[in-house]
Amino acid sequence: MKNKYTPFFIILLMFAYANLQAQIERVEPPFWWSGMQKSELQLMIYGENIASFQPKTDEIAILEVKKTENPNYLFVTIDTKNVVAQKFNIDFEKNGKVAFSEEYELKERKQNSAQRKGFDSSDMIYLLMPDRFANGNTKNDSQPNVVEKADRTKQGGRHGGDIEGIIEHLDYIESLGATAIWSTPLCEDNDTVYSYHTYAQSDVYKIDPRYGTNEDYKKLASELHQRNMKLIMDYVVNHWGTTHWMMDDLPTYDWIHQFPGYAQTNYRMSTQMDPNASEIDAKMCMDGWFVKSMPDLNQSNPLALNYLIQNAIWWIEYADLDGFRVDTYSYNDKKGIATWTKAVMDEYPNFNIVGEIWLHDQAQIAYWQKDSKIGAIQNYNTYLPSVMDFTLHDAVSSAFYVENPSWDKGMIQVYENFVNDFLYPDINNILVFAENHDTGRVNEIYNDIQDYKLIMTLLATVRGIPQLYYGSEVGMKGNKGKGDGDIRRDFLGGWKEDAQSAFVASDRTGLQNEYFNFTSKIFNWRKKATAIHNGKTTQYLPQDNVYVYFRYNDNQKVMVVINNSKENRTLDLNRFKENLKEAKTGKEIIGGEEISLEKPLNIVGKTSYIIEVL
Amino acid sequence: MKNKYTPFFIILLMFAYANLQAQIERVEPPFWWSGMQKSELQLMIYGENIASFQPKTDEIAILEVKKTENPNYLFVTIDTKNVVAQKFNIDFEKNGKVAFSEEYELKERKQNSAQRKGFDSSDMIYLLMPDRFANGNTKNDSQPNVVEKADRTKQGGRHGGDIEGIIEHLDYIESLGATAIWSTPLCEDNDTVYSYHTYAQSDVYKIDPRYGTNEDYKKLASELHQRNMKLIMDYVVNHWGTTHWMMDDLPTYDWIHQFPGYAQTNYRMSTQMDPNASEIDAKMCMDGWFVKSMPDLNQSNPLALNYLIQNAIWWIEYADLDGFRVDTYSYNDKKGIATWTKAVMDEYPNFNIVGEIWLHDQAQIAYWQKDSKIGAIQNYNTYLPSVMDFTLHDAVSSAFYVENPSWDKGMIQVYENFVNDFLYPDINNILVFAENHDTGRVNEIYNDIQDYKLIMTLLATVRGIPQLYYGSEVGMKGNKGKGDGDIRRDFLGGWKEDAQSAFVASDRTGLQNEYFNFTSKIFNWRKKATAIHNGKTTQYLPQDNVYVYFRYNDNQKVMVVINNSKENRTLDLNRFKENLKEAKTGKEIIGGEEISLEKPLNIVGKTSYIIEVL
Repeated sequence: MKNKYTPFFIILLMFAYANLQAQIERVEPPFWWSGMQKSELQLMIYGENIASFQPKTDEIAILEVKKTENPNYLFVTIDTKNVVAQKFNIDFEKNGKVAFSEEYELKERKQNSAQRKGFDSSDMIYLLMPDRFANGNTKNDSQPNVVEKADRTKQGGRHGGDIEGIIEHLDYIESLGATAIWSTPLCEDNDTVYSYHTYAQSDVYKIDPRYGTNEDYKKLASELHQRNMKLIMDYVVNHWGTTHWMMDDLPTYDWIHQFPGYAQTNYRMSTQMDPNASEIDAKMCMDGWFVKSMPDLNQSNPLALNYLIQNAIWWIEYADLDGFRVDTYSYNDKKGIATWTKAVMDEYPNFNIVGEIWLHDQAQIAYWQKDSKIGAIQNYNTYLPSVMDFTLHDAVSSAFYVENPSWDKGMIQVYENFVNDFLYPDINNILVFAENHDTGRVNEIYNDIQDYKLIMTLLATVRGIPQLYYGSEVGMKGNKGKGDGDIRRDFLGGWKEDAQSAFVASDRTGLQNEYFNFTSKIFNWRKKATAIHNGKTTQYLPQDNVYVYFRYNDNQKVMVVINNSKENRTLDLNRFKENLKEAKTGKEIIGGEEISLEKPLNIVGKTSYIIEVL
Repeated sequence: MKNKYTPFFIILLMFAYANLQAQIERVEPPFWWSGMQKSELQLMIYGENIASFQPKTDEIAILEVKKTENPNYLFVTIDTKNVVAQKFNIDFEKNGKVAFSEEYELKERKQNSAQRKGFDSSDMIYLLMPDRFANGNTKNDSQPNVVEKADRTKQGGRHGGDIEGIIEHLDYIESLGATAIWSTPLCEDNDTVYSYHTYAQSDVYKIDPRYGTNEDYKKLASELHQRNMKLIMDYVVNHWGTTHWMMDDLPTYDWIHQFPGYAQTNYRMSTQMDPNASEIDAKMCMDGWFVKSMPDLNQSNPLALNYLIQNAIWWIEYADLDGFRVDTYSYNDKKGIATWTKAVMDEYPNFNIVGEIWLHDQAQIAYWQKDSKIGAIQNYNTYLPSVMDFTLHDAVSSAFYVENPSWDKGMIQVYENFVNDFLYPDINNILVFAENHDTGRVNEIYNDIQDYKLIMTLLATVRGIPQLYYGSEVGMKGNKGKGDGDIRRDFLGGWKEDAQSAFVASDRTGLQNEYFNFTSKIFNWRKKATAIHNGKTTQYLPQDNVYVYFRYNDNQKVMVVINNSKENRTLDLNRFKENLKEAKTGKEIIGGEEISLEKPLNIVGKTSYIIEVL
């Protein structure tokens, strides 16, 4: 019970204490490591009137102290070069006296951390949304310090999925043939509604408590690594949420793009490369906000950019990550995002980052890949190792509908996607996918397992890194026209109260098992199929809606036949002599049969072959 | 009257004469010029058993004599270096004796012939088909030495148009604002049917007699030059007709691509750049015949290639040409066509050649322009100065239909065509067109003069070289679905028997005059609009289906507004401040009015403005 009157000396004491201790609310990054490639570390120190104090430290050189127009921020750059792992104090002085101190830690790095190998074309990536995958811990569904509470009845609400739920189902994911997980963002998103997608982050150093803790995320990585699998973080450079703690007290007015406050992007990413684009259109694309709840970060502000670089590196080092997927990559400040990417890759030269470049023109997509000859026309280099094959997605979304192929409709659409492969500087480091959390679900588009199988055959055998979207492997549907929530339904069996579990073979329907088993079979085969990982491609013009291509390296040769016609077809194999050469037989992966390559090849309508040529 | 009996000594005399003279049926090129940049000239000499004779000449060095498997051919390379214009004899020896001689001529070149300036972005090109434009000379409609006779009742027949008809209507063409003519081919095509398109040539050194003579063609160029206008020849490197005289007695088996004989191309030009294409598909594209009546020439045969190079140069020098349009450019042997192009351009460095690269992807089209950065990815350089903007054609063919614009439909389709301008090494040297002799006619597609006017506004003001197709300027229609003949109807009034002449203003209907006058006004204005010829472009994202862009250089600034909506629109000009700057007024070209740029701009639905900013 509180006294009615607080004695005067107690008030005095409280004031003095506040002056000494409570000045600092946040130091970010909260800790760092010794022995990083870039030895300068810029600490963001936040606290009331912190700028009126002078930071000092005996142990470590302070290279620069930056103040902004907001006295509650200090940006202190220290030099960690040749500094061993340790804890040390930063003293904050005023009038020549130490007013208070803050302890900071440089930790030991994991061995060979800098040489970590990112995901690559030998991987298959399983994309999931943590709120919608599995609820491993019902106790964290709602949390006192974040606004939105769990409510499974709402399509756009929090449903309670979490990191524990993912960890519980790693056997399932592994058995599918996946070797990596890309989870949509997990950092705290304290928006009042639609926080489940977690792209409007409120604290980028903290896992959302409804998903678990930072330690849980680290555990997820560790569990994956024990299985020789990889973890890819969905990183958002472009924006934070309006509920991000900084938004109430910005370090600088231009930390975000202001008009003042909100104005919407025009989403026309072509303005970033169009030599004819008006300045105003290009500016509105880059600087406009993606949506009103996501203030657009200004990567041309060096303090903001450096904050984002260090945050990204912090997560790699802290959680032991194997890759980033970068959201809305081409909406960022063009120069800023290249600097960010290069800084991360300089720190981890074998890491991998795939950027979301949602464009429909291959030259425009290829523009954004590292060392692009097309980007070079405008003297631009993103340093981004990997891009997404959105034009393949476009082709896949309509080609399998076509019953009567024409000059530009049918399997020719898929064929034509690979015609421009030479535009990409690194054709193996490109994400291939039929769907993701922002598109219609493939089983809704086609509504037929036969089409699903043809599409999986394609994704499992073309160049690049296949990415699957959770649930489609058991036939899940979702219509984007009905709202994003519909393509992000809960995985059946991820909640204890669910009537059925699609995680368990014995509980799956026959059709669900047919989806799963097909997917599992070809992607488990793919794990060791080096001709798919890094081989060359020879493709043949589709005939009668049948598409044939070969993948091959010195050790393996794979012939893929996709019959998108409803009719059975017979192929004269003499046409493929330049690849088959003198081969007599092949082992077909899907059916497991031996196939003669010395006579015409029969293939049933709407089926595919993956033939290892013997 | 012939004697019944020819005396024996006369027969003897005839035989001896034949042995001395009649051996040579053709020498090609039939003459040449002194002082050409490339001094080696390879004469093709054709005659029965000519290979058994040894060519000798006192005056000029013979560098090489090539025989082929066919004894009726000799390829004799002479050195014209430092040789003045003259006639000289080539003696043909057998057993050390001169059997017969052939006179050959090196003519004087026209002054500054090598420096001739080709068509460029200051030009507007009028494309016509000579058989369908105007019949100036009814006496040449049918000819004894060519098979197909005139028959205007046949859609695909010979209709009798000719060079004289073109010359007669140069006033008309000039008054339209055209500064150049591209006529489809005029060399002899002796096919039994469909010879009117003249792409299946039977003699590439001779104008088809139904069009006139070589001298007539020369006269056409001369008449044009007197008007400061230009002549562009439609040159076909890829193929000749089956009735070409050589086809009955090929110099070498591989002069044409043989399977043996005919096999059809797959028309998939992407195989020419696809790193994944199968060899067989790439070969069938390049080597397959365009149609059965057009044997595919083998440009990897050095003799054939050289024949084609010299033939092209011969026509430039002989007829005094200002440019080539090269048919089916990307169907040729890739290396051969680049060699051909470079050879022509080396001879005439300021000449211009536009290639038909009918593709639907800008990177793929840009690949084929000289010094392309995209071609360079595959170490390929065509040396082709100009390409055709087929993607603009695609956009124009559907954009003006769109009443309710969406993310990717409406004026945004046109806008997006210019986004990738940076892919082209020379963006001004690109042909812009709404239609040609192989596409649907724009007035058939739209059937509304309002759309025609919007399209002409576009063609007259975007970067590149506008090309119009004969007849559309008076509202002519044509539906490709009804056959090629329907898009190649006779120009109304080109035949004396026509009831009406669209060549004459007083004879045109009111609607025809509206078409003509609009076209004439803007293209005559364009003649001096240097900002259009070589200025920069700034384009603004279309809003409400209204597309605004600026063209500007140091001397001129032009604002173009195209309202593709049926509604009247009001534009807030503040949006265009970066281009308008402090401008107060502008002169509108179409309506001739002065326009205030200090207040919102009203524009009526489905109309356009071309505003010279003052």
